[in-house]
Amino acid sequence: MKAALFYPTLALCSALLLSACTSTPQQSAVSADLARLSDSALKSELAYDVVKSLTVEVGPRIAGSEGDKRAVVWAEEKFKALGFDKVYKEPVRVRNWSRGIADAKVIAPYQQKLFITALGGSVATPEGGLITQVVMFDSLASLKKADAAQIHDKIVFINQRMQRDRAGKGYGPVVIGRSQGAIEAAKLGAKAVLIRSVGTDNSRFAHTGVMQYSDDVEKIPAGALSNADADNLQAMLDAGKDVTLAVEMRAKEHGWQTSYNVIGEFTGSESPEEIVLIGAHLDSWDEGTGALDDGAGVGIVTGAAKIIKNVMGQPKRTIRVVLYASEEFGLTGAQEYTRKHKAELSNIIVAAESDFGAGEIYQIDTLFAPAAVEQAKPLFEALANIGVTQGHNQAGGGPDVSMLPKYGVPVVSLLQDGTYYFDYHHTANDTLDKVDPKALAQNQAAYALLAYFMANSEIDTRPAPAKTTNSH
Amino acid sequence: MKAALFYPTLALCSALLLSACTSTPQQSAVSADLARLSDSALKSELAYDVVKSLTVEVGPRIAGSEGDKRAVVWAEEKFKALGFDKVYKEPVRVRNWSRGIADAKVIAPYQQKLFITALGGSVATPEGGLITQVVMFDSLASLKKADAAQIHDKIVFINQRMQRDRAGKGYGPVVIGRSQGAIEAAKLGAKAVLIRSVGTDNSRFAHTGVMQYSDDVEKIPAGALSNADADNLQAMLDAGKDVTLAVEMRAKEHGWQTSYNVIGEFTGSESPEEIVLIGAHLDSWDEGTGALDDGAGVGIVTGAAKIIKNVMGQPKRTIRVVLYASEEFGLTGAQEYTRKHKAELSNIIVAAESDFGAGEIYQIDTLFAPAAVEQAKPLFEALANIGVTQGHNQAGGGPDVSMLPKYGVPVVSLLQDGTYYFDYHHTANDTLDKVDPKALAQNQAAYALLAYFMANSEIDTRPAPAKTTNSH
Ligand SMILES: [Zn+2]
Ligand SMILES: [Zn+2]
Ligand SMILES: [Zn+2]
Ligand SMILES: [Zn+2]
Repeated sequence: MKAALFYPTLALCSALLLSACTSTPQQSAVSADLARLSDSALKSELAYDVVKSLTVEVGPRIAGSEGDKRAVVWAEEKFKALGFDKVYKEPVRVRNWSRGIADAKVIAPYQQKLFITALGGSVATPEGGLITQVVMFDSLASLKKADAAQIHDKIVFINQRMQRDRAGKGYGPVVIGRSQGAIEAAKLGAKAVLIRSVGTDNSRFAHTGVMQYSDDVEKIPAGALSNADADNLQAMLDAGKDVTLAVEMRAKEHGWQTSYNVIGEFTGSESPEEIVLIGAHLDSWDEGTGALDDGAGVGIVTGAAKIIKNVMGQPKRTIRVVLYASEEFGLTGAQEYTRKHKAELSNIIVAAESDFGAGEIYQIDTLFAPAAVEQAKPLFEALANIGVTQGHNQAGGGPDVSMLPKYGVPVVSLLQDGTYYFDYHHTANDTLDKVDPKALAQNQAAYALLAYFMANSEIDTRPAPAKTTNSH
Repeated sequence: MKAALFYPTLALCSALLLSACTSTPQQSAVSADLARLSDSALKSELAYDVVKSLTVEVGPRIAGSEGDKRAVVWAEEKFKALGFDKVYKEPVRVRNWSRGIADAKVIAPYQQKLFITALGGSVATPEGGLITQVVMFDSLASLKKADAAQIHDKIVFINQRMQRDRAGKGYGPVVIGRSQGAIEAAKLGAKAVLIRSVGTDNSRFAHTGVMQYSDDVEKIPAGALSNADADNLQAMLDAGKDVTLAVEMRAKEHGWQTSYNVIGEFTGSESPEEIVLIGAHLDSWDEGTGALDDGAGVGIVTGAAKIIKNVMGQPKRTIRVVLYASEEFGLTGAQEYTRKHKAELSNIIVAAESDFGAGEIYQIDTLFAPAAVEQAKPLFEALANIGVTQGHNQAGGGPDVSMLPKYGVPVVSLLQDGTYYFDYHHTANDTLDKVDPKALAQNQAAYALLAYFMANSEIDTRPAPAKTTNSH
C-alpha cells in the first residue's frame, strides 16, 4: 500500500487553531467534489428502488431457501443492470432451517390463543405438541438461579422487556435470553422455553432470531411470544394463577445448502488491488420481506457505489460491494469470505457494513491509524453537512465485517438511528413501508462519501488500533 | 317525566353577559359535586381494571362463540362483584360465523405470501382454493364503472387507502368498499374480492369487519389485505405485471346462537323509572382481544357508573349500563334491546355509547331540546375542565344507540380522539397495551359527569330535535 498522502497538510492544520487554517486549492476541490457527490446521492432514489425491487420481486429469503436462491439471481442481475465492472458470486455452505407452524394457547385458567414464533434453529415440539404449566422468570440470570424442582417438565417463560434506545443498547442485555434460554432451561429439566420477544414494539408480531443449543444439554423447543401476548400471559401469572399452555412448533432442519456471497465491483483505475469494501447481507428471516433487515443495507451500499460511478467516474481504488449470505444464521457468508480472501485482507483499505435498518446516520466511528483519522477530515466535514458527527476510533464495522479487525483490517461504522428498528426487527412486519426514502437517501449519501473518499485518496488507514471495546 | 327544572336560572344567565352572571349557592354546590366526582374518576383505575379483566380472562368474543358465552358470564359476575343493584341479561339471537384460515399468495410473476383475513360474514373459497389473476381498482366507484370482460373469473382488488383523522372521518369513504365490494365484484363475474384493509396503519395486520351480500347476486369470498401487503401487490401491478394469486379461505356459518345483552343498574332513589343509559358492546372480533373495540367502552361505562355510586351515593334517576350483544354483526343486540324495551324508551332521559377506542374525549355533542342544552351548562363546564368542549346538537350517540333518536330518545356523543384507533381496529393487534390508562380514566370521568348530571338533575331533554345530519 502506498504511504504517500493525498492531503498532506491536513494533519498539521488540524493541530493548529482552526481559524489559522486556510484551505489549499486541493482541499477546496476535494470538498467541492464531496459536496457534489453528497447532493446527488441525497437526491437519488436508487437505494430505495433497489430495496423495493428486492422486497417486491424476491421478498423473504432465509438462508438456503428457494427465496434465498432467487435473491442470489436477483443480486447478480441487479449489479449487472447497474453496470458494475465485475459481478461474481462465491459459494457458501449454509444451514437451511424452516419455521413451520408455531401455535400456542393458554388452556387454563382461561382460554386464549398466544401469538408466538419459533426462534431460529429451534427443534420442533414432540408430535401433537406439549401441554404443561408455565413458570415465569424476569431474566436469564434469574432462570439460572432457579431450583430445578420448580421447572422440571414445565415451560419456562423468560419475561424481560427490551428498552428502546437510538443506538440499540437495549438489545444486548435481552438477546442473551434468546440465544441461551433453551440451554439454561433444559439444564433444569424444562420441556420448552418461550421468551418475551426481543423487540421494542407493543404488537402481536413475535420476533424471531437465532438461538443456540449445547451439545451436552437436551435440545428443547424455543419460541418467542409477541410483546402483547407476553403482557397477557404475565397478567395471568401476576394474578397468581397456575397457567397451562399448549404449544406446538413444527420447525425443521433441511441440511446444508449452497448459497452465495454476491459481489459487484467498480474496479480501481489507479490501484485496482486496493479495496474499499462496503457490504450488507442478502439473506433475511422468512416472515417479513427483509426490508429493514437487510434490504435497506443492500440498497444503501449498492446505490452508493453506483452513484459514485455516475457522478465522479471510475474510482482510483476498487469499490467492492459484498452482499453476504446467511448473516442471520451465524455470519456464515462473512466467515467464508474472510477465509477465502485471507491473502487479500491486507489490501482492504476499509470495510463497513450497513445492517441496522433505514434510520438516518448520526455518527461515524473509525478504526484507523491515528494519522489516517486526521487525514480523513474532509470526509468528516462532508458528513457533518448531512448530520453525521465524528465519534470514536474503536469502530466494529458491522456484523459481517466484525471479524476483520483481528486481521488488521481498518473498519468504519456509520451509526444509524435505531430508535424504531427493533419495533420491526425479525418480524413479519419488516416490510418496505417501514423504509423512509429520505432517510435511506441520507444513508446512501454517507456511504457514497465514505467509499468515494477512501477510494480516491491515498490515505493509509493502517495500522488500525487494537480493538479494546465492544462498540460496534 | 317531570317538567320542573333543577337549575332554573341557567338559561337566563347564559343569555346575558357572562360577567353579569353570578352563581347561585345551588349552582356552586352542583359544580363542586361535579368537580369532586371528576377528580375521583380521573384517579380511579377501575375502567382499566375492567378492560384488563375482560381481555385477560376472556379475550376474543365474536358473537355466538364460546368466548362470547364466557364474556356474558364474565359481565354478570363483574356487575355483581361491583355491587350493581340489578344485574340481568336479555337473550339475543345472534349469527355465529367463524373465520377459519385465510391464506393468500402471489404465485406469478413472483412468489410471495400475502397476509389477509376474511371479512366478517364472507363465504369460503371453493375446496382447494382459487388460483386466478387479480385486477386492481382504486375504489368501489371505479369498480362499478368497470367492464365485466376485464373482471370475469378474476379476483378484484380494491386498493383504496384510509386517511388518518381524529374523528375517524376517513372511515366512511373507504368502508363502503368493504361492505359492498363482494356484491359489485360478483355482478361483474369476479371469483373473489380482496380489499386494502380499512385501517390507517402500515403493518401486516389485516383489518376485518362485516361485509354484505345481496340475495340476487352470487356470493363470492371477500377478504382484506394488510396495508403492507396491499403495497406489495400494488407495486407488482403498478409495474404492469400480470399477477396471479392463490387464495384459500375457510370461513363458515354456524347458524344462530343465543347471546345476551348484559345489563347492570344502579336504581334511582327518586325516579327509578327514569333511565340514564350508558352502553358499550360486549362482543368483539375474534383475532384480537377486543381491548379497544370495545373492551375500553365496557370499562369506561362500567367504571363511570360504579364511581358515581361510590363517590356520590345512590343516583336519583336509574343509571343503566347496557353491554350489547353482537354489535359487529349488524347491531343485533341493540336492535333487540330497542324492540324489547319499546314501551320504556320514552323514559330514557339520555343514551350514550362508548365505542371508539380509548383515546381522550375532546367534544360533547347532544341531541337535546334546546332548553335542555342551556340547562346542561354545569355539565359542559365540568367537562371543559377535563378537556371536553361543547359541540353541536345533532349527536348520533354511538352505534348501539343510533336507532333511538327516531323514537324520540335524546342522545349524547362523547367524541374520542380516534387518531390511532384505526391502526388497530378489527385486527389481531387490538390488545390491552393499546389502552392508555390515563386517557381511559379521562373517558371514565366524562361518562361519570354525564351520567351523574343527567341522573341527579330533573333536566327534561325532550323533545329532542330531528336528526338532520349524519354526525355520530
Ligand atoms: Zn441484519
Ligand atoms: Zn437480523
Ligand atoms: Zn365497536
Ligand atoms: Zn368494531
